[in-house]
Amino acid sequence: MIATEIFDQLSALIGMDKVSVNVCVREQHGKDESYNSPSLPDLVVFPESTDDVITVVNFSAKYQIPIVPFGSGSGLEGSAIPVRGGISLDMNRMNRILEIRSEDFLVRVQSGVTKDQLNHFLKPYGLFFAVDPGANATLGGMAATNASGTTTVRYGAMRENVRAIEVVLANGTVIHTGTLAAKSSSGYNLNGLFVGSEGTLGVFTELWIKVWGIPESIVCARAEFPDITSCVEASTAVVSAGIPIVRMELVDSPYIEAFNHYRSSGFSVVPHLFLEFRGTSESVMADVRVTQELMKDEGCTHFVFVSGEKERQQMWEVRHHALYAFMHQHVGLRHMGSDVCVPISMIADAVRNAKELLCTMELQGAVLGHVGDGNFHVSLAVNVDCKEDLSRAHAFNERLVALALRVGGTCTGEHGVGLGKMKYQEKEHGTALETMRLIKSVLDPQHLLNPGKLIDPS
Amino acid sequence: MIATEIFDQLSALIGMDKVSVNVCVREQHGKDESYNSPSLPDLVVFPESTDDVITVVNFSAKYQIPIVPFGSGSGLEGSAIPVRGGISLDMNRMNRILEIRSEDFLVRVQSGVTKDQLNHFLKPYGLFFAVDPGANATLGGMAATNASGTTTVRYGAMRENVRAIEVVLANGTVIHTGTLAAKSSSGYNLNGLFVGSEGTLGVFTELWIKVWGIPESIVCARAEFPDITSCVEASTAVVSAGIPIVRMELVDSPYIEAFNHYRSSGFSVVPHLFLEFRGTSESVMADVRVTQELMKDEGCTHFVFVSGEKERQQMWEVRHHALYAFMHQHVGLRHMGSDVCVPISMIADAVRNAKELLCTMELQGAVLGHVGDGNFHVSLAVNVDCKEDLSRAHAFNERLVALALRVGGTCTGEHGVGLGKMKYQEKEHGTALETMRLIKSVLDPQHLLNPGKLIDPS
Repeated sequence: MIATEIFDQLSALIGMDKVSVNVCVREQHGKDESYNSPSLPDLVVFPESTDDVITVVNFSAKYQIPIVPFGSGSGLEGSAIPVRGGISLDMNRMNRILEIRSEDFLVRVQSGVTKDQLNHFLKPYGLFFAVDPGANATLGGMAATNASGTTTVRYGAMRENVRAIEVVLANGTVIHTGTLAAKSSSGYNLNGLFVGSEGTLGVFTELWIKVWGIPESIVCARAEFPDITSCVEASTAVVSAGIPIVRMELVDSPYIEAFNHYRSSGFSVVPHLFLEFRGTSESVMADVRVTQELMKDEGCTHFVFVSGEKERQQMWEVRHHALYAFMHQHVGLRHMGSDVCVPISMIADAVRNAKELLCTMELQGAVLGHVGDGNFHVSLAVNVDCKEDLSRAHAFNERLVALALRVGGTCTGEHGVGLGKMKYQEKEHGTALETMRLIKSVLDPQHLLNPGKLIDPS
Repeated sequence: MIATEIFDQLSALIGMDKVSVNVCVREQHGKDESYNSPSLPDLVVFPESTDDVITVVNFSAKYQIPIVPFGSGSGLEGSAIPVRGGISLDMNRMNRILEIRSEDFLVRVQSGVTKDQLNHFLKPYGLFFAVDPGANATLGGMAATNASGTTTVRYGAMRENVRAIEVVLANGTVIHTGTLAAKSSSGYNLNGLFVGSEGTLGVFTELWIKVWGIPESIVCARAEFPDITSCVEASTAVVSAGIPIVRMELVDSPYIEAFNHYRSSGFSVVPHLFLEFRGTSESVMADVRVTQELMKDEGCTHFVFVSGEKERQQMWEVRHHALYAFMHQHVGLRHMGSDVCVPISMIADAVRNAKELLCTMELQGAVLGHVGDGNFHVSLAVNVDCKEDLSRAHAFNERLVALALRVGGTCTGEHGVGLGKMKYQEKEHGTALETMRLIKSVLDPQHLLNPGKLIDPS
């Protein structure tokens, strides 16, 4: 069936205003924020309800048309790029917050609700949503990639913050995974299986999200170190001491330099840790004091902390704008980021090795890290039109992943597999990959849900 | 094939000392600590290595003999009872602690290692294993049922404390789920799927377990309340206030009375909360002070706390021996426990309803609860030889489960489905049950792994 026929039939089924074959719209849905090449869907569908999604999924099954769910387009591994064409299922019109149960610290949302939208809604209740991947992603997209970020060291990743999901399966059936209880030993843990499945096992239409009480006191700190090893080792010391740190972010000196240039600021061009503490006023200050001592023991040369909201926001600007400032220095180049996560005892070695590798491979890169989780990103500025540049960047990432897997880590801590990490799946999962393939094949026998992503059917 | 033939062939394959058809041995492996009727395996096999397990699984596949993994036999839902006969696979000889990575807070164990054995091993490292289901269960058994218990409100259930698993699948393949990193978005979350699968998807041979640092300070408290509603509401207030409580256990007055009788003690026969706080000396005392105020606001009539190790142990004795003391009052009767878990806002209503139901149905029961998680157990003393008594107890449990499901809860918070909760699976999971069946059928197409448990193939 050609696109115009699909358009006519789908329009008749769910309404013409929910379907588009406009090339600009298709181009918007053919890419994400990764370096991966765009690939256009044949058409874009904008469902407004679970029933709409069921209709589209049944239609796709009947005519064997691929379906790729699409959220905010902020993915970093190409998970939402429709490499086999078909339908891009844009979830942004399903953006209603349906129910809040503040006593249970739970909220029910449609999957197109974004992180910032939810936090804005929650504030009057004294609550917040804890997963912070940086981008203002949709919650459905975040659940699909098991997103995490700066606060995961304290509050967990999406898997720990999604209590239940409404999913439309490949055969059009709607299932509900999970329960509203804090724990369960009933049946197989489908909830944990679907989180992180990147649209390959079903389309998420609603989510029950765990939220948290806004703490009494928040203090942020900035710590400078003479070198990257002492900086990372200081972060490990904080984790080992059991301090309930909420954020602990490594920002490498090239980022600091880029930020200074971008904002005319004068931070010392050395590796930094940016930290955040939350709790009661008493407990927070106790944690800050112990942390400052630990940092000093590891060679910290300067430690400052602030508590006012404005001062905290200013302090975090360096971290939040680091990548933007870095890419601003490399106009015309694209960002390629690694996302390895290693056991915490290995993080200092892994970051040092990555820095040395950048040097020996003569690559322009810088390191950002959620070092409390063992997760760090090396950002490369790559000329994607230059084969040599691109292959050198790929070679760097391959060596980094090989190192992470050798020490028991993973190729992706939070971005997902998408297109870019498929080649590492066999190495990482070994014989377990076949088990994943069996699950995919029995839940999506026609391989129509986000085909060509995460898992290879063969 | 008859049992003697199986015995001969298996003996030839893995050694005669690892196989038994002795009736006493089979009887030990035909029951657990639940009220469920015993059912004997045809033989018991004692593997000593992953290779032994592979051999047994391949043998079972060839001759279509059921395999039921067996740990400490402390299950409360009949999960390890071989209802279709076959092989009881006793994992207790696989009891070696293989590797400790204290900097990563990880330890690698064979699945027959028990909770107490692990904690004894960890103590010199300043570490402990945090999941406490009461019984000294094997870690493999605990992972199989996603066990949890008194400390789950702070440290999570097994699913949060098992980082990686070595599993022998039904086809004899060995897979490794998970990684040693703190988080991952790579591939499907098999680790979370296999935890809680009750031996129906594979046999666990090794586990990487997350462990925790022994805190500087531990304080325990006991709080008395005039009635069960104020007691439960006080626990909800503690959770809502965000106090990082480590244990918060409801012990109902019939238990207190039984304990007084059993130990000649003189506790007030009223509902109690038993609590535990951990952290630095400063933070713990701050938490105790705030908690005491909250308790008072909810009607607490007496609040005492202790910090010495001996005093703490004495205080917890009431909780730990409550069930034993209760059953001691009902000689000749068997214990039948419910295990519902409800959203935290519903726990006070749910417990009150359960108490009223006990009264109207004229049943001898008492309530114990991990109330911080919304999970509670109503223990019934049942004459299993009396049909009427048994059917009244079943009717009570059915009404309790119906109530829990109506408010978005689960039929089993921590004991697992086993035999007793299978009948609630359809009601709880709806259409998702078919997804579970598909996963079971593709991973164990001959239905030889713990058949007749958790999930019905039809």
